[in-house]
Amino acid sequence: MRRSALVFAAACGLVPAFSAAQGPAKALQEKLGYPRDAKLLIVHADDLGMAHSVNAASIHALEIGGINSASLMVPCPWFPEIADYAKSHLAADFGLHLVLTSERVYYRWGPVAPRDKVSSLVDANGYFHHDWSAETRIDPKDAETEIRAQIARALAMGVKPTHLDSHQNRLFQTNKDLFEVILRVAHENNLPVLIPRNWFGDFPYLEKALGPNDVVIDRVITMAPGLPPAQWSAFYKKALEHLEPGVTEFVIHLAYADAEMKAATHERDTWGAEWRQRDFDFFSSVEFQKLLHDNQIHLITWREIARAMNPPAKTE
Amino acid sequence: MRRSALVFAAACGLVPAFSAAQGPAKALQEKLGYPRDAKLLIVHADDLGMAHSVNAASIHALEIGGINSASLMVPCPWFPEIADYAKSHLAADFGLHLVLTSERVYYRWGPVAPRDKVSSLVDANGYFHHDWSAETRIDPKDAETEIRAQIARALAMGVKPTHLDSHQNRLFQTNKDLFEVILRVAHENNLPVLIPRNWFGDFPYLEKALGPNDVVIDRVITMAPGLPPAQWSAFYKKALEHLEPGVTEFVIHLAYADAEMKAATHERDTWGAEWRQRDFDFFSSVEFQKLLHDNQIHLITWREIARAMNPPAKTE
Repeated sequence: MRRSALVFAAACGLVPAFSAAQGPAKALQEKLGYPRDAKLLIVHADDLGMAHSVNAASIHALEIGGINSASLMVPCPWFPEIADYAKSHLAADFGLHLVLTSERVYYRWGPVAPRDKVSSLVDANGYFHHDWSAETRIDPKDAETEIRAQIARALAMGVKPTHLDSHQNRLFQTNKDLFEVILRVAHENNLPVLIPRNWFGDFPYLEKALGPNDVVIDRVITMAPGLPPAQWSAFYKKALEHLEPGVTEFVIHLAYADAEMKAATHERDTWGAEWRQRDFDFFSSVEFQKLLHDNQIHLITWREIARAMNPPAKTE
Repeated sequence: MRRSALVFAAACGLVPAFSAAQGPAKALQEKLGYPRDAKLLIVHADDLGMAHSVNAASIHALEIGGINSASLMVPCPWFPEIADYAKSHLAADFGLHLVLTSERVYYRWGPVAPRDKVSSLVDANGYFHHDWSAETRIDPKDAETEIRAQIARALAMGVKPTHLDSHQNRLFQTNKDLFEVILRVAHENNLPVLIPRNWFGDFPYLEKALGPNDVVIDRVITMAPGLPPAQWSAFYKKALEHLEPGVTEFVIHLAYADAEMKAATHERDTWGAEWRQRDFDFFSSVEFQKLLHDNQIHLITWREIARAMNPPAKTE
């Protein structure tokens, strides 16, 4: 259904329509060939490659239609497992979840670039910083060196990313310089970046840095710390029942609450093993599929967005 | 019992006795304060830090007396978990299992040193080589840079190693130059190295490189590929029942055959998840404890060996 809609859109000349010079601005859903009131959703799992448990749960969810998009953490030790899957599932909508932090305590990773080339990103032991404080001085040049190295490793290992986003939103929600780094590298690689309009209020530099060809989706919806586990399903149910028209990305975090994941996240519950199991349970449920259907929500991926940005050349 | 034996040995002037000039050579067990016919055993688990499953099974075995010694892989992502355990269990006999390879397929790691400083050790994607072929040119200087970096990270993270050994025996069983690297670094750090006499036949450069103060144990006994799983216990039982006098190290590999370990080792059975579960099952058994007792085998650790090399100064 998604494919036929896109073919229809392309045939009608609806794609591309990113230039402001072409008249009244079209909403992204219209550029993708849907009516203005369409509710389009990307169900996106973060953190693939972080741990085997994350890979296993995310692949399972992908194969049963619980998610339709994901992004991969290149510096993490289980990246080869998910890269191998990506190479044999070329239609999967996999982006790169660019990583500049190693936020856990028992389980850590460091940069892909030689660490003496990205010294502001690493701690005294050579791992990415556990966290960035007000005193942590991140050199944007180091960030650029590192994300270029992550993209290069992904490409060398056979992954063809459809989009870029940023682990812990560090490249989006820190400062203008780091946002310009990901935007510049995305432009050079001709890839869309996750930029939702509902972040503009808190981070005004985002909108200011954008050019006319940058894709902006309408909103990211994601679980934030503080919600009692018993209200997990209700949160997503409400979000689906009240989804507004436009393009929304659900950013979710899947894993099984198994021994590996419990140990990897033992120091706090937020984005921990049980959190990820709850996400898995909801998005692999029949209830989720019914909510999509009952609320006329259409699933799209970054692959369609990228294709709309870069339409195939006309053959006549 | 081990402690009192050592105190007795020190009081009798039996320790140290490493100098050939002191008369007829004493066997290592005698230098440790035991009679010449004593059967001394180090039950040593390799690969701690490699995966959570390895850490969990090894810690369990350590705490129930199934093993009494182990070595840690500093470059691996779960090293922080076992380093944290080491810091809070200062009596544990933990050495460093120096790592120059990343032999698995879905789960990989790279050097601690900046990779552009150890370029002969890494593959095109920046991981340690999966394997070394006849064409792989390992620069001993790179190996030295890397193992110094591993020791420095371990010390910085609070681990005080009691000995050094080498993952996949690469530093022992490749060539003289690499053996001299680990020997030189061990001397500088005043640490004993795993050097068993039963390797001298296959690797004659080992014996030639040793100085008068290097400790040589009598033998390593370890499971080799090819034994049917049903004969696992019988192999270890026979080894214990026929253990010869002197100092023996059992080199074993513990983990649970859980989802993480199965995926980490999915490409082959050797040293895989089931292999490690079988090792765990035998060494955590009552049968193993009974075999130790019935065959009058005394457990010792590298801590005693190191102390015998470096006896406390006399107080009178």
